[in-house]
Amino acid sequence: MIHITLPDGSVKQYESPVTGYEIAKDISPRLAKEVLSVSVNDELWDLQRQITADANIKLHKWDDKEGQHAFWHSSAHLMAEAIEALYPGTKFGIGPAIDSGFYYDVDLPQGQVIAEKDLPLIEKKMLELARQKNDIVRSDISKDEAIAMFEKKGDEYKVELISELEDGTISLYSQGNFTDLCRGPHLPNTELIKAIKLTSIAGAYWRGNEKNKMLTRVYGITFPKAKLLDEYLVLMEEAKKRDHRKIGKEMDLFTFSQDVGMGLPLWMPKGAQLREQLETFLKKVQKQFGYEQVLTPHIGDVKLYKTSGHYDKYGKDSFQPIHTPQEGEEYLLKPMNCPHHCEIYKARPRSYKDLPIRYAEFGTVYRYEQSGELHGLTRVRGFTQDDAHIFCTPDQLKDEFKKVIDIIFIIFKALEFNDYTAQISLRDPKNTEKYIGSDENWEKAERAIVEAAAEKGLRTVTETGEAAFYGPKLDFMIKDAVGRSWQLGTIQVDYNLPERFELEYTGADNQKHRPIMIHRAPFGSMERFVAVLIEHTAGKFPLWLTPEQVVVLPISEKFNDYARKVSNILNISDIRTVVDDRNEKIGRKIRDNELKRIPYLLIVGEKEEADQSVSIRRQGQGDKGSMSIDDFARLIKNEVEEQLASIY
Amino acid sequence: MIHITLPDGSVKQYESPVTGYEIAKDISPRLAKEVLSVSVNDELWDLQRQITADANIKLHKWDDKEGQHAFWHSSAHLMAEAIEALYPGTKFGIGPAIDSGFYYDVDLPQGQVIAEKDLPLIEKKMLELARQKNDIVRSDISKDEAIAMFEKKGDEYKVELISELEDGTISLYSQGNFTDLCRGPHLPNTELIKAIKLTSIAGAYWRGNEKNKMLTRVYGITFPKAKLLDEYLVLMEEAKKRDHRKIGKEMDLFTFSQDVGMGLPLWMPKGAQLREQLETFLKKVQKQFGYEQVLTPHIGDVKLYKTSGHYDKYGKDSFQPIHTPQEGEEYLLKPMNCPHHCEIYKARPRSYKDLPIRYAEFGTVYRYEQSGELHGLTRVRGFTQDDAHIFCTPDQLKDEFKKVIDIIFIIFKALEFNDYTAQISLRDPKNTEKYIGSDENWEKAERAIVEAAAEKGLRTVTETGEAAFYGPKLDFMIKDAVGRSWQLGTIQVDYNLPERFELEYTGADNQKHRPIMIHRAPFGSMERFVAVLIEHTAGKFPLWLTPEQVVVLPISEKFNDYARKVSNILNISDIRTVVDDRNEKIGRKIRDNELKRIPYLLIVGEKEEADQSVSIRRQGQGDKGSMSIDDFARLIKNEVEEQLASIY
Repeated sequence: MIHITLPDGSVKQYESPVTGYEIAKDISPRLAKEVLSVSVNDELWDLQRQITADANIKLHKWDDKEGQHAFWHSSAHLMAEAIEALYPGTKFGIGPAIDSGFYYDVDLPQGQVIAEKDLPLIEKKMLELARQKNDIVRSDISKDEAIAMFEKKGDEYKVELISELEDGTISLYSQGNFTDLCRGPHLPNTELIKAIKLTSIAGAYWRGNEKNKMLTRVYGITFPKAKLLDEYLVLMEEAKKRDHRKIGKEMDLFTFSQDVGMGLPLWMPKGAQLREQLETFLKKVQKQFGYEQVLTPHIGDVKLYKTSGHYDKYGKDSFQPIHTPQEGEEYLLKPMNCPHHCEIYKARPRSYKDLPIRYAEFGTVYRYEQSGELHGLTRVRGFTQDDAHIFCTPDQLKDEFKKVIDIIFIIFKALEFNDYTAQISLRDPKNTEKYIGSDENWEKAERAIVEAAAEKGLRTVTETGEAAFYGPKLDFMIKDAVGRSWQLGTIQVDYNLPERFELEYTGADNQKHRPIMIHRAPFGSMERFVAVLIEHTAGKFPLWLTPEQVVVLPISEKFNDYARKVSNILNISDIRTVVDDRNEKIGRKIRDNELKRIPYLLIVGEKEEADQSVSIRRQGQGDKGSMSIDDFARLIKNEVEEQLASIY
Repeated sequence: MIHITLPDGSVKQYESPVTGYEIAKDISPRLAKEVLSVSVNDELWDLQRQITADANIKLHKWDDKEGQHAFWHSSAHLMAEAIEALYPGTKFGIGPAIDSGFYYDVDLPQGQVIAEKDLPLIEKKMLELARQKNDIVRSDISKDEAIAMFEKKGDEYKVELISELEDGTISLYSQGNFTDLCRGPHLPNTELIKAIKLTSIAGAYWRGNEKNKMLTRVYGITFPKAKLLDEYLVLMEEAKKRDHRKIGKEMDLFTFSQDVGMGLPLWMPKGAQLREQLETFLKKVQKQFGYEQVLTPHIGDVKLYKTSGHYDKYGKDSFQPIHTPQEGEEYLLKPMNCPHHCEIYKARPRSYKDLPIRYAEFGTVYRYEQSGELHGLTRVRGFTQDDAHIFCTPDQLKDEFKKVIDIIFIIFKALEFNDYTAQISLRDPKNTEKYIGSDENWEKAERAIVEAAAEKGLRTVTETGEAAFYGPKLDFMIKDAVGRSWQLGTIQVDYNLPERFELEYTGADNQKHRPIMIHRAPFGSMERFVAVLIEHTAGKFPLWLTPEQVVVLPISEKFNDYARKVSNILNISDIRTVVDDRNEKIGRKIRDNELKRIPYLLIVGEKEEADQSVSIRRQGQGDKGSMSIDDFARLIKNEVEEQLASIY
């Protein structure tokens, strides 16, 4: 008798081995139609694979990451099948599922290429093959047999991959006439793949090594319903328009230079202004919550990072140590601010009366990322964290967590992120030896996080076993205006660094105690946050935040002086105003400045100068009538004040 | 006939060779008594050395650096003579004049030491020898003779130094029984040395190499009048009290950590607050003058610094390049911000209508200094420049210079530096080939600086030949409250970087032109400036600037709540207020907080709580009566506003 335990705790009994698909069908025929893969004792399996012993299982549909993963993995095979049919003799590298779709690296026969224009043909072939409703069948063969098989086919890449596997059974997956080396899992049948879009082509060195041959990487995405593909295409179109790299250029926010280096953004005046607004805003909020700013250097002696453990973690794959003319002296670019803050904590003896101590710093850190992984402001090599470290007693932990949640709420509200959830990551209670810190402290900390989140009414998922070895944490996920999810904002408890740095405070009992540290960064990094904010708002930042609030457009050069007068009056009232005095037609000026996302456009000509007034256009909303300069200044001031009042 | 041209252009004629001393006597017997050395064709000479051909000369008295240099150099010899007399068998290393006095490195005979307590004895001996009125006589001998002489004396250090000199004549100086290897120049006679103070003792490796023997370095200073020594001692006493390292600790402004690294300051909350106040103040001023903030990373590809020329300049003696896992990729910690700002300039095409462009950044740079040269915040390895680069046309140069001078005036006024001068450094018109940039541009730039300084009523000295090879400059020197001079604030024209980075703008003529760059940093570096400011004000910063403006001192724990209420009310009005709620006697609290230089101390007890008032003490001035909380808040606000109104 086999006992199958479902996620809700209910148990089904079977007399003989059973597949995930059979269990789904057993539950409901409708579920059997929708199910894509199954987790068996936390391992992802094909639906058709026999479960031969008692197991905990979870069935995955399209709305699970695990379901999508199998779907896209099978789609990669389907694409390979189509390419093999269209380009016989093609050799295949690897073809994984990725976050959003899949790709396959292929080596086409001598003289043949796949270009963008060929993608529709491959899509068509894939649909044709999918409609053959071929079963996807797993088979296990020996390593030697597998090598012989792919040698015969002439597929040297697969042979290379197989030879590196451990001896034993190798799994293959076949559908129709196509067989691939693969760990799985896969869909039961290709017919589930209903809608297909091949999205792009890129070159990729075999195994990422530039000394190897360059293969052709074909990217695609597939869906179980045509409607889902349509929605995806609309979203992609919208995301393209909101690409922060495109908008960053249009708004003159930041730039990159090959000579400074990849992944090292240069903030132009308007971008620097935007960052300063964000930093000033957060500093103000943090001041109210009792934070103190500190400033620390961007390097530290290697000793410091050996103490903290970062040297081992970032050592080999990162920026290498900086030597000096003094033999044996070595510094590291700082990958994190925490060790420096620990040293400030240690600069003086501390008493329980001093706690909690909250050190905040907009600290720029440097971490080496592979050049292929760099992307605009979201993945860079130097970034500024809105970092802070709270040193507190175990009893203060819950209250401090609640205060950090409050700060994150204020930020989300100010920046109009209204859809967010949080994940609580706890330790695995079955493996407590993996974690540093006493059981008592862990229980206290985990309870503190769970209660703090509940008391603040946060929507949370709890993941057991997802805590870092040094403490439990709380992560925020936001949904942006086009429905994409971004991880922002982390609160992390740390028992490790206080131990490593031997941090202490004198308690009310006059004994030495170890404080607990909380790492927290509501924005995460200024670079990534600005990128997300641009894509969320399409560059139309809230008025209080946007670098240029008003642009004055003289109808002709005759009114440039009046335009400058208007601009000066507004700037004196701290309204960030510029003048577009180019010798261009007014229509062109309006278009150009709308593209710069300046919220208010003031048109001034003869009538306005005579009345000492301005004609107002709201970005994207057109004409808003005219009023006196002073009334307009009051209007803007009120709008900003109302926004800020609703935040704090 | 020998023609001697004096600095005022007048010419004296002599029939035979003549000495500087004879010329001085010829001018006036009084001058002959005061003169210490002479510059002959810009080379520093002994007064007794024969001038055998036509020459331009300048006679140096005590008020010239060159005069002091000869005075202290001879004093080093006098100290060596005294040490040789008191400790026969001592060997001598080097004994130069320094900025303020002199030192000599000595190797005492086996078993003997010089300690602090021995210094008065050496001083006494020096005075005794000085009163012997010995002539200091130069003699020239061959290298071989010199080696033989010092070998005989057993002075291996001098032998080593001489063997490294080029073959030819070696100069020696003798006085009484003492002879030293020396290039000179020296005083004519030891009798000019009237007042002597040996100040300290340190260990110093022979030739600065830690593999060599550690010698004893004895520091001293001497004067031509006893009164000058008295004044110097008073100044030193005062300077010691104002030492920024001492006050920085008392006020909790900054700290250093061995594990972060020497010369890398960590700014504690109050220091970070002070810096932020200074930065906000300067940003506000700069905004009024049309500056735009930018933000750039702290590293750059080595290529960038090869283009700028900094790699050659800072290369070997500085922080070494940072390697990455990618072969051939190398970055440098940035020693200067200018290359990054050039790249921002280059990010877009520029027109003459865009100029002047003024990019400002509080940019942290890293330069390696020898550990022995590090000193508190004045000499560090990482520092933040209040940097800006102005890109302009040649015609805009003068106006831009005037605007920068205005900014520097505002800063000096705000920070109560009332005694300052400036040095204009021009190129050497006889060696124009040493300089980059056209004659026309140099003439224009030099005229612009001279006129700008004159129109702004600046007290200046002009030094011909002191310009950098890439442009003329203007440096500000301030005198602090105890009379010491500090160099602060530089304005530097640069023709070189625009050339190296191929910067361009399109002129009104539609042709490409090269802009001129101005580097300027009114504070210089935030670290050094804060150090100077602490020593100038003894930590008693102006009210608008000081990190903590008010401290509330409850008379006993009973009044802690009321103290916190007062503090909250003041903080809401943006008055930076803290509470000292330690369980200490009120007298102790007053003393401790006076030491922290908090300008206002509010004492609150039963009476104050009943009246909702505060009793006021002004730091260093004692009791100032009592008033309501609101009245006190108004008082502070008014004081700050008055200070700021007088600045802008």
